Parts: sequence; structure tokens; C-alpha cells
Amino acid sequence: MIKPPFSFQLESNEGRARTGRFFTPHGEILTPAFAPVGTQATVKSLTPEQLTDLGAPLILANTYHLHLRPGDRLVAEMGGLHSFMNWSGPILTDSGGFQVFSLAKNRTIDDEGVTFRSHIDGSTHRLTPEIAISIQENLGADIIMTFDECAEPYDKTYSEEAMIRTHAWAERSLKAKTRSDQALFGIVQGGIFEDLRISSAEYIARLGFPGNAIGGLSVGETKNEMHTILEVVDQVLPEDKPRYLMGVGTPEDLVNSVMRGVDIFDCVLPTRLARHKAAMTRFGERLNLVNASYASDPLPIEKDCQCYTCKNFSRAYIRHLIVAKEMLSATLLSIHNLFTLIKLVQDIRSAIRAGKFTEFYDHFFQQRFILGIEEIE
Amino acid sequence: MIKPPFSFQLESNEGRARTGRFFTPHGEILTPAFAPVGTQATVKSLTPEQLTDLGAPLILANTYHLHLRPGDRLVAEMGGLHSFMNWSGPILTDSGGFQVFSLAKNRTIDDEGVTFRSHIDGSTHRLTPEIAISIQENLGADIIMTFDECAEPYDKTYSEEAMIRTHAWAERSLKAKTRSDQALFGIVQGGIFEDLRISSAEYIARLGFPGNAIGGLSVGETKNEMHTILEVVDQVLPEDKPRYLMGVGTPEDLVNSVMRGVDIFDCVLPTRLARHKAAMTRFGERLNLVNASYASDPLPIEKDCQCYTCKNFSRAYIRHLIVAKEMLSATLLSIHNLFTLIKLVQDIRSAIRAGKFTEFYDHFFQQRFILGIEEIE
Repeated sequence: MIKPPFSFQLESNEGRARTGRFFTPHGEILTPAFAPVGTQATVKSLTPEQLTDLGAPLILANTYHLHLRPGDRLVAEMGGLHSFMNWSGPILTDSGGFQVFSLAKNRTIDDEGVTFRSHIDGSTHRLTPEIAISIQENLGADIIMTFDECAEPYDKTYSEEAMIRTHAWAERSLKAKTRSDQALFGIVQGGIFEDLRISSAEYIARLGFPGNAIGGLSVGETKNEMHTILEVVDQVLPEDKPRYLMGVGTPEDLVNSVMRGVDIFDCVLPTRLARHKAAMTRFGERLNLVNASYASDPLPIEKDCQCYTCKNFSRAYIRHLIVAKEMLSATLLSIHNLFTLIKLVQDIRSAIRAGKFTEFYDHFFQQRFILGIEEIE
Repeated sequence: MIKPPFSFQLESNEGRARTGRFFTPHGEILTPAFAPVGTQATVKSLTPEQLTDLGAPLILANTYHLHLRPGDRLVAEMGGLHSFMNWSGPILTDSGGFQVFSLAKNRTIDDEGVTFRSHIDGSTHRLTPEIAISIQENLGADIIMTFDECAEPYDKTYSEEAMIRTHAWAERSLKAKTRSDQALFGIVQGGIFEDLRISSAEYIARLGFPGNAIGGLSVGETKNEMHTILEVVDQVLPEDKPRYLMGVGTPEDLVNSVMRGVDIFDCVLPTRLARHKAAMTRFGERLNLVNASYASDPLPIEKDCQCYTCKNFSRAYIRHLIVAKEMLSATLLSIHNLFTLIKLVQDIRSAIRAGKFTEFYDHFFQQRFILGIEEIE
């Protein structure tokens, strides 16, 4: 069911956790994989070379943002996103749905699509499944997404309504697609409700997408609720296709979600925290480097971390850059934070391949306990 | 007169223009050389690796800024500037004089030194030649500067007074110096007045510094006045020592100044213009990349430019980054602007070595004429 030039090879598994290779026209993605987010066709503060050095397997760009600015037609004229932003690896674009529901103003939803005002200049725009696909075809990413509606996770009536619309939109997205060098992934919705999630996963699975995403998580529900939904959806989605958990996450989310069968992740957290002066660490601790306690600290952000930042700069230097409002602080922290998640997921992959993921999992949460790291809800 | 580990070898000359090699404990500087400015121990928006890739032969850091924040004692504790900012090439620190006279508040000058209030928090500080040297010894640059006073260039009485103080301070700086792994350069002052400049150059030359700087230019005088002063000073300063023109400049300034015997330059212009969305070009034209005319321009900033930015990104992409307020725009423009000046000076060096600097000079100004580039005063 996955058509060339795409294919997915499962390599190994341990329990529900698995490793694989997803082949795209711009290279293969070793899964599990963590994708940095380049909202506006740039992973904030980093060059494409820095992303390559980090081992970024895939990057995500946002349809909503790029449609508004600089415009997807312009990106197409410039040869598509890969050429425009000079990234030769795999790219994924979301459908714009999530941003329309979280960023845009005055949105009105009907069964056909959504009309909204731009958060930039208030201008009126419309997205439908057909328009979202057309924009994504202009952008030219390797993986594109069906247009979906992300509801309030605890509102069952709205969750069901949005889910039904998401299903109809998934079918229309599939019909609207014309390019064969892009893989269209479907999205499972249904809030925190197990019955909705099961029926959504069944519906989306039936449509035969080359990959399936789980949307509407990490939007306010508890960790336990997220885990339950992942377990439920994991039972339904086909094993021979990649599963992409959208907008997640933290180190503990990555470990917990791979344990429940997820293959691909993306999240703005590492680069956003970097701009807010915070460093992520392997076990999920966060260091606020603006703290005076780091002013004369000669240590790297994280002991034994092999990232460019930790190999070359002290906490004292990074704090100086932050206090002096120097842009390099965002660059160095973004490098460290992205490295932390990319490396964690690579290590998870190695552990599964070696049949040691259970040990890895236990060690990870034991370390968190020892370090006194609390769950960040 | 230049003591090891420093030495200066003149290689070739054509008229007053010359090429050489200045050896420092952190590598040799091929002259003529252009130094990027890293005011706060970071060349804004760039990593040290990006500077290495650009071929930066030397970087400058500011004593005034680093003394106030994070403090030179802290930098010393962290192993000095090279280690603190992870730059293994040569570093030059200025003496703080220029910033005290341009940035600080409520300054009072006496023959001993200057008392002033920090532009950051209003706290009171004092700089004397002895303190300026002590700070620079804490910072640990390869080349350090005598404490000087930069007067209003057109005020002869003040210029003479400041010059006399600068001379006394130069002697005191020399006496205060204790480290043998730093080369202390003297500074010629005297505003736009030829007689003052001659007497200052003679005075400073007599003190036997391993290198001599020309201060108080590019501070409001005309290009012709600057050229005249350079010619006058060039006749007096010893040939066998490097000559450093502080705070210059533009492509045309570099060509004109090498023609008048200058070896080393530094300037904030390339990185400052980058943050103001402007690109420099080889012949001195400036492109304001925020202009709508670049919105769908697939060309690189400058045709045939071999910098990382021009090899990989279009004007349209850079304009998009600027409009979207993405930090990467400053990085890409800084890379292009610094490359332009560093490469220009490298090409000047090659031309002199090939005995073709006169041709180079004529071609440069012919191109400016053809392109209709006006002098930027």
C-alpha cells in the first residue's frame, strides 16, 4: 500500500517499540525519529548545515505560516521548500489545521473548510482539504498531511463532530492529491475518548495512507490520558506503516511514546525553550541558564553531552550571551536542545535493535527518580 | 624591536601598499587583514566555526563592554577570552578609550584617567592606562592597545590636549604591561590636523611598540581628510611594524587605506548592517534586502560571490527571513558581509604580491563608477 518512491521497512521490535526505515525522495528516515520544527522555512537560529551536523533526520515546516508568508506560490516558483531553504533532507509539512485552530482569528468552521483571519495582518483566508493539499503541493515537502480539525480534548460532543469532519476531510485530501513524489499521511483525532480514538484509527487506517499520524495530543490532556490513547490507537493502526505523533515532546514523552509504538515525532519545544534561555537535558531536567548561579560556572550545560555547544562552551559563557542579549545564545541552546532529543531517540533506536529497550526504559525513569525530576504536565 | 613570540615579516610592496605576516601566539595574521568585531566576546549571530570558515584572520573584542559585563576577572577565571568564547585564532582588544568617549555617561576626564557611568546600569567606573592594561591582561588577547583619548576631530585645542594625554597614557600603558605573550600597540591621535598627527606619530613611533594604530579616524571627518592623515602618518610610522587603522571600514576605505600603507583593519559595519537587513557588496554598493523588489528574486545577494550565503540562498529567501523576523537573516547577512570584506582584503593582498595592485585599484574605482556607486560619507 506504500507506493514508490516511498517505502517503510520494519527492522526490529521489542514489545510495541520498533525500529524501521522510511524511504523518501530526499533520503531515508531511520525510525524512531525526532524532527526539528522550521515553522517559517527555517529552524529558528540555525543554518541547514548545523541541522545536518545535528543529525536531524527530517524537518517540519508549517503550511499555515508559509501560506500566509511568503506564500506557497512563491515557494513553488523558487523551486519548492527544499531549494528555498536549502535543506536537502526529508521535509514534512503539516496541513495548517492545527494553526488555524490555535493562532488564527475569527475562524468560522463549516463542513467545507475554515475561513479565518491571518494573525499577521488580519486578512481573510480560507482553508479546505483541497486548498491545504494544493498549498502543500506548492511547498513540495516529502510528507504532507490531511487537513484536520483539532478539538478541545475534553469536550466529547465537539471531539466527535471534529473527528467526523476530519474523516471526511481526510478522504477529500486523498482525492485532491496529485503529486506522486509526496506521501500523504492521515490523522487520527478523537480527543481523550477511547471509543472515538478507536473509531478514528479504524477509519483512517481503512483509507490506506502510507503513514498515519496521531493528532490532538499534547494539547492539555494528562500524561496518563495521552498514554492510554496511544495504546488504544497503536492496537488499531497498521503495523507496516509509520506512526507519527504530532507536536510531542519532552524526553519522557519520547521514551513513553516509543514504548507505545510511535515512530516519528516533531516538537517546537527544543528551539522555543532555547529562545527562552532554557536548556533541556537527557532525562528531562530544565536548566534556566539566566540564573546567577551559572555566572561563573565553567561546566558545559550537561556533563558528557557530545553536542557542539557542550564540547566548546561553558554555562558561564552561555549565561553571559543571554544577559548581554546576544543572538548566539539562542543558536547554542537550540543546538544543545535539539541534539538532546535527536540523540535520545537515536539511543532508543539502538536499544530496541539490541533488544535492550526495557532496560533503557527502566534506567531512564530510574535516573529521573534519582535526579528528582518531576513530571512537567 | 618586536619581541618573540611576536614578529612581523614584510613580504612585498607596491608603492606604499604592502603585504606581510604578523606572528602571534595564536597563529599568524596575513596582512593586509580585516578583523570582524566581537564586541561582547561574540561576533554577533555567528559561531566561531562560521568565522573560521570565513577565513577571519583576527577578531576584535571590546575592553569597555567586557569589563562591565561579564567582567574581565570572570573571563580570566574562565581561562581568558580565547577559551571563554572558543576562538583559537588571534584576538585583539581595544583599550576601552573609544567606548568611554562614545557610549559611557557623565564622564569626567583628568590627567590620570576617566571616571564614567556604565551605559548599562549607571554604575560608576574608572579607567586609567594602568587599569585598561590590567583589564586587557585579564582578557588575554594577543594584541592589546594603549589607553587613549579620541577627541572631536575638528577641534584643534581639544585634539592637541587629548593627543598629549594619549602620549602620556601610552607611556604609562607600556610601563603597566606585565605579560610577555601580549603585544601592546600604541595609538596615534591628533584629529584632522597634519602637524598634530606628525608629532603624534613621531612620539608613538619613538616608544617602540611592536605595532602602531591610527585612532580617531572614521569619526566624522571627510574621506579626503582621512586620506591626507593616512599619508602623513604613513611617512612617519616605522615600516617594519604593522599599522592598524581602527574602526574602518567600507570596501572603498579598505582599498584606499591599503594604498596608503595600512595593514590591519576592524569594523562593526558588516555585522551591524546585517542586523539592519543590508547587504554589502564588493564594490561598496548596499542592498536593502527588505525591499519588495527582492520578494521573488531567485538570485544570490551578489552574482559570483563564493560565500556560504550566496552559494546556497536567494535574495527572496533572505527577504522572507527578514520580513518574518527570523534570526537566520542576521546570520546569513553577517556571513555575506564579512566574507565580502575579508575576501576583498585577501584579493588586495594577492594583487600586491603579484605587483598588480595599481591595476586592482583602478579596476575597483572604475567598477564603482560604472555601477554608479556614490561615496558614502
